[in-house]
Amino acid sequence: MKLATPLSAKLGLALPLVQAPMAGGPSSPELVAACSAAGVLGSFGFAYTQPDEMKKQCAWVRGKTDRPFGVNLFTSPQPAQVDAASQRGALDAVAGYYKELGLPAPEPVNAPFAPDLEAQFDAVAEIRPRVFTVHLADLPGKGIAELKAKGILLGGSATCIAEAQRLESLGFDFVIAQGGEAGGHRGSYLRNPYQSLTGTLALTRLVVRSVKLPVIAAGGIMDGAGIAATLALGAQLAQLGTAFIACPESGASQAHKDALLAVREDTTRVTEKFSGKPARGLSNRFIEEMATRNAPQLAFPAQNSVTGKLRQASAKAGKPDFIALWAGQAAPLARALPAAQLIEQLNTEAVAAVRNVKGLLHDS
Amino acid sequence: MKLATPLSAKLGLALPLVQAPMAGGPSSPELVAACSAAGVLGSFGFAYTQPDEMKKQCAWVRGKTDRPFGVNLFTSPQPAQVDAASQRGALDAVAGYYKELGLPAPEPVNAPFAPDLEAQFDAVAEIRPRVFTVHLADLPGKGIAELKAKGILLGGSATCIAEAQRLESLGFDFVIAQGGEAGGHRGSYLRNPYQSLTGTLALTRLVVRSVKLPVIAAGGIMDGAGIAATLALGAQLAQLGTAFIACPESGASQAHKDALLAVREDTTRVTEKFSGKPARGLSNRFIEEMATRNAPQLAFPAQNSVTGKLRQASAKAGKPDFIALWAGQAAPLARALPAAQLIEQLNTEAVAAVRNVKGLLHDS
Repeated sequence: MKLATPLSAKLGLALPLVQAPMAGGPSSPELVAACSAAGVLGSFGFAYTQPDEMKKQCAWVRGKTDRPFGVNLFTSPQPAQVDAASQRGALDAVAGYYKELGLPAPEPVNAPFAPDLEAQFDAVAEIRPRVFTVHLADLPGKGIAELKAKGILLGGSATCIAEAQRLESLGFDFVIAQGGEAGGHRGSYLRNPYQSLTGTLALTRLVVRSVKLPVIAAGGIMDGAGIAATLALGAQLAQLGTAFIACPESGASQAHKDALLAVREDTTRVTEKFSGKPARGLSNRFIEEMATRNAPQLAFPAQNSVTGKLRQASAKAGKPDFIALWAGQAAPLARALPAAQLIEQLNTEAVAAVRNVKGLLHDS
Repeated sequence: MKLATPLSAKLGLALPLVQAPMAGGPSSPELVAACSAAGVLGSFGFAYTQPDEMKKQCAWVRGKTDRPFGVNLFTSPQPAQVDAASQRGALDAVAGYYKELGLPAPEPVNAPFAPDLEAQFDAVAEIRPRVFTVHLADLPGKGIAELKAKGILLGGSATCIAEAQRLESLGFDFVIAQGGEAGGHRGSYLRNPYQSLTGTLALTRLVVRSVKLPVIAAGGIMDGAGIAATLALGAQLAQLGTAFIACPESGASQAHKDALLAVREDTTRVTEKFSGKPARGLSNRFIEEMATRNAPQLAFPAQNSVTGKLRQASAKAGKPDFIALWAGQAAPLARALPAAQLIEQLNTEAVAAVRNVKGLLHDS
């Protein structure tokens, strides 16, 4: 038995499931290929990836499987150069950590802080993934028309009703309702992200009832019961990120995987100290201390450049203290299974959950 | 058709549904009676109710229906008397609002700030409701044994795995997983409430997979699809509070009902400025300004005495500015229907949602 929705059928998926794009490592070509080959929509998080590398990784996946995959970009505008005083404050705030890890003192950071967005768009148009999704913002009308003309299915994240309705009015093909449980960056762009942490259950209903577009639910979904629940809420696909982080194919650091598998409660926090924009991850020394000190930071994505070497060195040292341990609120349910095996379990569980709830129906 | 779970069958409910206890007005005897008579578990929120009044209201409900109902108390310890300096600060913080509403300046408040908990327990033992639940804390072992010996089914709120496991180890009969979406007071008592805002979807899975007890899911559930989703998550009952606030039988102020029905996004915030403990409600002037000013407050429940007259006068004036507009994150889905009619709609919707998700199952 399997579960199918109009959107999963349109995408030719064996399960109504998306492996969430996770920029910065986890959604490696190996993970995307393994997920797509196993019948879910594997997805690249290319926010920090240069156009040539984007093309290379997509070509690699296409060498492994002819199944569809998705590509995601962060479409928020880049900040102009950062002033010297802000720069100094942000560097001073992390200097002690650099020293602790035996790194040279952090140096002033310079734009560009992320790949050129126009060049990334061009790469997407050239790659022509089956699905293209945007995060942290919407997309200029020109880009929407161009990508749709190429037969690319277009989706965007919404953390509130207004964002979902805006995507619909712009001509997007589907909306990802990113619930408050979700790990990684909050996709909010019309409201204060800290005031747009509506839980997945509530948000999915708010969005499904506010737009006509198909809805993908994201946030806190870690097992088949979670998938079945999002379908009951009216979502057509469930998007799981944290569930795939500990897979051997995932490019997350071993320290990240170990921390995720060790967690026994929802210890996640929303922090903007890693990148400059709020994102949810497992609490660690960096998150706690930076919050307690109310440490200054640069705007997104400049702050990524401030913390980059620190995060790399911390991961290399197998020390979770200064890594961005992105994870959703149901992190304690993470499993360390090969993607194909995990997907098979998720399918079995989701079918069982649907049968269970169906078994609760009685003649009155 | 109807939905039934082992716990709903045990309680003799026509729907797997609890009308959440809502202290301070909304869960009026009229609402409890209407809900119980319609086949869900009506519930009293008696946190601020004197023992004699508890008995009177329960007797009134029993005069209307022989269906079971529940009683809920806040079981956190009362603070000792408040020192003069804290008192002054808390009163000064709200004095301007008192003036604005034409009230005399707020006066120092004195213990007791809430009814005597022991006397309330005695009243519960005398009333012998079918269900007794606790919030904000667990319950002394003596009370657990005594109430269970009377055939009362005992439940408690959990906002994390540890709280659920503690209730199980204490001998409780079921756990209410209170997701971050939930309106009203956060039930957290083992962890920082602000770090225990796990969304309903994630929390329900965490709790269902961590204890053997039946689980009731609460938070952000406003329609039949939400109910179906919580059943898919493995919950045996869904607990809805905000969904019942705008019912004519509800004792919420008209200004509260109007504000709830007017809201078009999740505008809720978690604030401790009304009572001294964090609780979720629709944002209004009081919440925003008290947060911006970082205004001082007394401990729970003493702060209730500081804001009490203000809230009453604001409600009387039909002004939502200074009322505790408790509501969950799916507030925009509120309906103003008589309880019986709402419950009938919820049943129809939940059955339809289960059928829809069942219809997604296909032979592979």
